[in-house]
Amino acid sequence: MSESAVLLITCPDRKGLVSSIANFLFQHDGNILHADQHQDAELGLFLMRVEWDLTGFALDFSEIPVRFDPIARRLGMQWRLASSSHRPRVAIFVSRQTHCLADLLYRYRAGELACEIPLIVSNHPDGRWIADSYGIPYYQIEMIAGRKDAAEVRQLELLDEHRIDLVVLARYMQILSPAMVARFPNRILNIHHSFLPAFSGAKPYHQAYERGVKLIGATSHYVTEILDDGPIIEQDVVRISHRDGVRELVQKGQDLEKVVLSRAVRWHVENRVLVYGRKTVVFS
Amino acid sequence: MSESAVLLITCPDRKGLVSSIANFLFQHDGNILHADQHQDAELGLFLMRVEWDLTGFALDFSEIPVRFDPIARRLGMQWRLASSSHRPRVAIFVSRQTHCLADLLYRYRAGELACEIPLIVSNHPDGRWIADSYGIPYYQIEMIAGRKDAAEVRQLELLDEHRIDLVVLARYMQILSPAMVARFPNRILNIHHSFLPAFSGAKPYHQAYERGVKLIGATSHYVTEILDDGPIIEQDVVRISHRDGVRELVQKGQDLEKVVLSRAVRWHVENRVLVYGRKTVVFS
Amino acid sequence: MSESAVLLITCPDRKGLVSSIANFLFQHDGNILHADQHQDAELGLFLMRVEWDLTGFALDFSEIPVRFDPIARRLGMQWRLASSSHRPRVAIFVSRQTHCLADLLYRYRAGELACEIPLIVSNHPDGRWIADSYGIPYYQIEMIAGRKDAAEVRQLELLDEHRIDLVVLARYMQILSPAMVARFPNRILNIHHSFLPAFSGAKPYHQAYERGVKLIGATSHYVTEILDDGPIIEQDVVRISHRDGVRELVQKGQDLEKVVLSRAVRWHVENRVLVYGRKTVVFS
Amino acid sequence: MSESAVLLITCPDRKGLVSSIANFLFQHDGNILHADQHQDAELGLFLMRVEWDLTGFALDFSEIPVRFDPIARRLGMQWRLASSSHRPRVAIFVSRQTHCLADLLYRYRAGELACEIPLIVSNHPDGRWIADSYGIPYYQIEMIAGRKDAAEVRQLELLDEHRIDLVVLARYMQILSPAMVARFPNRILNIHHSFLPAFSGAKPYHQAYERGVKLIGATSHYVTEILDDGPIIEQDVVRISHRDGVRELVQKGQDLEKVVLSRAVRWHVENRVLVYGRKTVVFS
Repeated sequence: MSESAVLLITCPDRKGLVSSIANFLFQHDGNILHADQHQDAELGLFLMRVEWDLTGFALDFSEIPVRFDPIARRLGMQWRLASSSHRPRVAIFVSRQTHCLADLLYRYRAGELACEIPLIVSNHPDGRWIADSYGIPYYQIEMIAGRKDAAEVRQLELLDEHRIDLVVLARYMQILSPAMVARFPNRILNIHHSFLPAFSGAKPYHQAYERGVKLIGATSHYVTEILDDGPIIEQDVVRISHRDGVRELVQKGQDLEKVVLSRAVRWHVENRVLVYGRKTVVFS
Repeated sequence: MSESAVLLITCPDRKGLVSSIANFLFQHDGNILHADQHQDAELGLFLMRVEWDLTGFALDFSEIPVRFDPIARRLGMQWRLASSSHRPRVAIFVSRQTHCLADLLYRYRAGELACEIPLIVSNHPDGRWIADSYGIPYYQIEMIAGRKDAAEVRQLELLDEHRIDLVVLARYMQILSPAMVARFPNRILNIHHSFLPAFSGAKPYHQAYERGVKLIGATSHYVTEILDDGPIIEQDVVRISHRDGVRELVQKGQDLEKVVLSRAVRWHVENRVLVYGRKTVVFS
Repeated sequence: MSESAVLLITCPDRKGLVSSIANFLFQHDGNILHADQHQDAELGLFLMRVEWDLTGFALDFSEIPVRFDPIARRLGMQWRLASSSHRPRVAIFVSRQTHCLADLLYRYRAGELACEIPLIVSNHPDGRWIADSYGIPYYQIEMIAGRKDAAEVRQLELLDEHRIDLVVLARYMQILSPAMVARFPNRILNIHHSFLPAFSGAKPYHQAYERGVKLIGATSHYVTEILDDGPIIEQDVVRISHRDGVRELVQKGQDLEKVVLSRAVRWHVENRVLVYGRKTVVFS
Repeated sequence: MSESAVLLITCPDRKGLVSSIANFLFQHDGNILHADQHQDAELGLFLMRVEWDLTGFALDFSEIPVRFDPIARRLGMQWRLASSSHRPRVAIFVSRQTHCLADLLYRYRAGELACEIPLIVSNHPDGRWIADSYGIPYYQIEMIAGRKDAAEVRQLELLDEHRIDLVVLARYMQILSPAMVARFPNRILNIHHSFLPAFSGAKPYHQAYERGVKLIGATSHYVTEILDDGPIIEQDVVRISHRDGVRELVQKGQDLEKVVLSRAVRWHVENRVLVYGRKTVVFS
């Protein structure tokens, strides 16, 4: 596939927005591959994702921001530009449950995820054999009560060193410090093993079992300072019955977790997710 | 279809339970049509539903309790016996939203629900035309702040007069008094328009919209003293997207509400639901 | 809600299409409410739906075609223009199974369907009480073997008389003549009670039961000359188990049929469906 | 977990079946862990799965068949007895698509599948790295047109040598010879990448794309002589849209294939599947 560019735009809604953007692309000979937009009537917001072919486009990629900036200023746009040739660099954090890690790495190898995964970070050794089989460095950093700060310093060094764009918490089970969260705004992706906002916090499958729900879920969201409260990217559920104990809930839930997290990662790295307020638009 | 009997049993789990029950039926020439059982290993509980043909059964229906009682005592069983020829008498309570009412009445007429529906109670006139088209009495009892007690007294009179077995709150939107709830333990069925325990209380679709969830749900449960907290009988969900405003959520959600509530009513009147603790077993 | 216009466009894909359309609207002070587009890379096709506010739009609705025509010609567009103030006129055809009829009429009355339903046509009397409760004329036209032609002539007269835009076969169970189908290209909507292309033709629930599938489905599609072969608008499925006999399949399936057909009708009357080749794009 | 026994029974339906089986277990001090039964009223068939604790059971496992045989003969039962301590031996056959292989092996290692997987057979080298990372022998046997017989002879030798109980075709893409199918009746499990009976045969995702369906599916079934026609064990579907090309269908479908196949394997090795006629009962 040839190289393409993606523009993600948020701005106050008004007449002429689509026209301005479409004209900008057309004037430089841009061939639109996909365009999708959304108006939030309540908030008076316009959100758009447009992807076009860079082959035959009259501007160099580096020129695009310069030329687009005047339009964006005039219309009060917040925007982000990405090229399909830039693959975001992703770090996976994992704890003792390795099903999401194994799933993401297989998809990565199969070409499903448009990113690089230069490292895996864990507080346990359980995922090492998986990382090894894919030839990806595995950094084991223990989280000892009272000394978590030092561990996080080491984690941040690794993220810097590897120029990480996105942190994926693939069942990491540790709460990140506010400082860490602030370093990666809307760039830390978590999978929570419940249908949020139901059963936030610890042991959601146990909570679900106690409550006697008839479906269980999984939720992928961006991490914010408040636990399990960030903008939701994807959710899914599966039916359970009274025959299912906690063990069966865990097993059924893991299949959800893998699918839901991998969708969220794919959409993020393909620049399909726009956060606004506490919500996301996914241009799928 | 010929007449059948259903026995619903809960007791401490131990050896020989199935054998005792099966022998009792076999000795009296019972032809089992359906049998299903569940063991809750954690609580050490045994739960069973068995349905058999009354044609050719050696005991009169009225004799069954007398003969079964010694077995039940010996094994510490709580049990309930029902005949398919007894159709439970159901009162539907409704407010201004009539989609569940219309749906239940159509199913009732189509023969999907093994019950009688002798009356509809509402605090508004909106459902009257529907009740009229099915020829079912519609009692409009206004709920005026400060005078709800009197209204409830009138409701209870009607329920007594019509010998009501089950009250179905088909989007009734009023909180019942503890006294009323206590009068019908596990015999008041509600539909809540969210995937409980998420978004309990008022305006769940608005709450869901604000939170930015990617699926919305509906839950049918027995009413207990604590709001939206009773044992869940059935739940279902439907996918939504950022394109859906509150109005679309309401519309999509109504289709869930109808299906979820009607399943719960059907299972209840077919004696398929066993409540234990805060949970239900549905023998479907 | 104020009046809006919808433009549905299909044309060969090329640069500048979005720009041309957006400029046309912007030049006449159009406020875009929703826009969605799709490119079929394989066929080199561009398909778009754009909806804008007519309040404040510089052109009268009747002027729009005149002004848009030159653009459309230049770019080789097939297009259709609709106003939200024009409610399509829908005839419902039904046979003995009335659940879809009852469902559609309730939604119609609740304001969910942006159409008029001036008449119902049936070869049986079963739906008359439902039509009556909504005050909609019910024409019973018997289909007698060997004399179906005469019946269809009468049907066509009624459709003409009532200036019908869309025919909805709500479990009509009769095969229309090629002449009738040709009279309403992509304007006859059917619900088939299976997940097409599985189990086309007669008795799909029986077929599904015989085959032992684990899910059953329903499909809404436009009627073409070949039975159950037209472009699919919507499908859905529900899980079944070995406990479900044909009777349970029918019951579970009816809930699907209602939801699937009503979605298709809603999307059609809101001008959200574009047919191309054997497929549809649904701009939802 | 302690050792348990499972009895799977099929016989003509008659009075006293449950009683006979429950008495047999009770007389030998059996503690029933799970029991489930099904009556096919149409065929007059009774099907049952009963699982009980072998700890404290009065009979040795090897004695059970001897003592149960007279009962079985008297009631015309076909039956199968299995111990949870016997883990079925499973061979996985795979071709170039390795997602199901990787998924099954991860589940196997995680303890989700109650079986042994002593070998993997493939006509391609693509899965070798996965097999290696789990330390499972990988036999590459090329399928050359005109010389498939010899290849199958070699496969059968391997299956014999490893005393294989179940063959899992994890996207194997080769049609087995009738002789091979006959050797493993109801013991060859296939995953077909469509919602059967729709799109049987080659390239189902392409077929689905051409037909314009709104959902795609996957089906796991036992292999019989007729292609894609054997008894279905499990199916599932996922929603697609006009935005999805064949490549997206393949990607979304693979997630279904993995889940559907792994469920079928789990149920089979846990002795939960009973085949009768062209159908299965899954005691889940």
